[in-house]
Amino acid sequence: MRTEIATLGEFGLIRHLTEGIEPQNRSTKYGIGDDAAVLSYPADREILVTTDLLLEGVHFDLTYVPLKHLGYKSAVVNFSDIYAMNGTPRQITVSLGLSKRFSVEDMEQLYAGIRLACEEYGVDIVGGDTTASMTGLTISITCIGDAARGEAVYRNGAKETDLICVSGDLGAAYMGLQLLEREKSVLRSSDKDVQPDFAGKEYLLERQLKPEARRDIIERLAQAGVRPTAMMDISDGLSSELLHICTQSKVGCRVYEEHIPIDYQTAVMAEEFNMNLTTCAMNGGEDYELLFTVPIADHEKMEEMEGVRLIGHITKPELGCALITRDGQEFELKAQGWNPLKEE
Amino acid sequence: MRTEIATLGEFGLIRHLTEGIEPQNRSTKYGIGDDAAVLSYPADREILVTTDLLLEGVHFDLTYVPLKHLGYKSAVVNFSDIYAMNGTPRQITVSLGLSKRFSVEDMEQLYAGIRLACEEYGVDIVGGDTTASMTGLTISITCIGDAARGEAVYRNGAKETDLICVSGDLGAAYMGLQLLEREKSVLRSSDKDVQPDFAGKEYLLERQLKPEARRDIIERLAQAGVRPTAMMDISDGLSSELLHICTQSKVGCRVYEEHIPIDYQTAVMAEEFNMNLTTCAMNGGEDYELLFTVPIADHEKMEEMEGVRLIGHITKPELGCALITRDGQEFELKAQGWNPLKEE
Repeated sequence: MRTEIATLGEFGLIRHLTEGIEPQNRSTKYGIGDDAAVLSYPADREILVTTDLLLEGVHFDLTYVPLKHLGYKSAVVNFSDIYAMNGTPRQITVSLGLSKRFSVEDMEQLYAGIRLACEEYGVDIVGGDTTASMTGLTISITCIGDAARGEAVYRNGAKETDLICVSGDLGAAYMGLQLLEREKSVLRSSDKDVQPDFAGKEYLLERQLKPEARRDIIERLAQAGVRPTAMMDISDGLSSELLHICTQSKVGCRVYEEHIPIDYQTAVMAEEFNMNLTTCAMNGGEDYELLFTVPIADHEKMEEMEGVRLIGHITKPELGCALITRDGQEFELKAQGWNPLKEE
Repeated sequence: MRTEIATLGEFGLIRHLTEGIEPQNRSTKYGIGDDAAVLSYPADREILVTTDLLLEGVHFDLTYVPLKHLGYKSAVVNFSDIYAMNGTPRQITVSLGLSKRFSVEDMEQLYAGIRLACEEYGVDIVGGDTTASMTGLTISITCIGDAARGEAVYRNGAKETDLICVSGDLGAAYMGLQLLEREKSVLRSSDKDVQPDFAGKEYLLERQLKPEARRDIIERLAQAGVRPTAMMDISDGLSSELLHICTQSKVGCRVYEEHIPIDYQTAVMAEEFNMNLTTCAMNGGEDYELLFTVPIADHEKMEEMEGVRLIGHITKPELGCALITRDGQEFELKAQGWNPLKEE
């Protein structure tokens, strides 16, 4: 079944897609339907705002990304930025640019993913803009969150001797992308009946197609009474993000190859693709894990914390930023992260 | 001179474009440079959030819209939504999708317009996202503003016997667009040396290319002690917006053709184009004027207010929404506003 979007028009489509949405946050006073959403935060909260623009052909490929997954991921990557400030995501606005190719049913799928992410993370959809596009799909999401006053964690607070921590594991989303790209070219060049075999690689696909934001880590840190000195999420690759923290904090760092957390499936795929595993983990991107620094006094607490690995420490700025390999060699970190403005 | 964007990369470009930006609002605690901006509003304020997505080929045509004007307008249309809530715009995030066609110098022009608008209206640029695009220019701006607690004005508060008011004049931006489109086709079909003659039509071009948001009206209403019962800005055309207010307020309305404010240049152009002037004013769109209702007790204050015209009144819902023509005929209002999702 295919219903043309023109049959509903802009306001009809928005009404249809946002039907039955009930606000979950007390700070959401008025959502969709006016010139602006109205939010009401108590005086002891600071407000966090982040935004992401996702363009078809640059950030996603609809030949292998299901629209529901795309919706889910588009929302989650914004939540990740709010958690990376030590905050809680509360509201999003969703702007969509749609070419004629898309039907009402397509948009139902996309919105089902966005709404599922919002339910899982307790976030309200409070507004947006929906318009025609000449070419492809454009998704622009802005997320508003909050943190206790003075509790937001910036990138610029890392201090010498602080420990560098990372949640989860790295490089899997990048490997998932390589896998999907490979299957895409196989499908193109062969019989249409060939079914891709993803057995044993489910984790890589999940990391690429349906990433989660690390709310659990923020909660664990709070429970343990650990306040990171600096924090950000890993979207462009560990190397690139470490350099951001070090530059903004005016410090150096040493991270150890042997401590970089990598999943078994990631390692298997890297071998299959004949790629350097550490390079994939350092520069892969789209991990949406948290990278943060803590005072050395919290060493024991961090050693015990589930889902977190200590990968190195902060140094004086003069020492620069380096990776220490398993055989003790030092390599200067370079930002080789995914940068669509350079790759073009 | 043309500098390729790839020479700066994403972060370099953002740093370059946002250099020297100093926050003007106390509520801006931390702007560009982290995972999220951090805002801090006092407890007696409510927060307003609005967003607009502008796509090349749908919302603007770079063959006649200078990038600086486009930047200015992109910001101002968002401010207009915040004023339409009886609020004050404070912060924006700016997301850009750029194809290779655009140079660093182009982005300087666009940003010069955005920054000028922000200076004029006292708004801070606190974040955004910049990425490559496969096709054309994408601009997504989110604006955050504030209003005194309980003072935000919605679309749903209009009451029977309320007076309907509109600021400025209507239809001029639409006429400006017609004029630019005509000159574009003249230029296409003739010698390249032909210079368009816009003498005497400057107002129409200004309304189309460099609209302003009606902060002055919000200030005048506050000074006069008038609180509108319902309000919105006119972006899709007076007819369409009146229907929004009446539907959401569950009322009807009567507006009078003879009271619709129209500028002399708009009238001249409508004649030149052989278009119905009232239709242009009712359905033209992009006016960014304020449409609002006030209690009948404020009649005298509104009669005296500069830049505002009384155009009709709110009725019982059973009476529907109608325009009364100069010869006393009643026409039901229809939303023929500009709707790119239907026009496609």
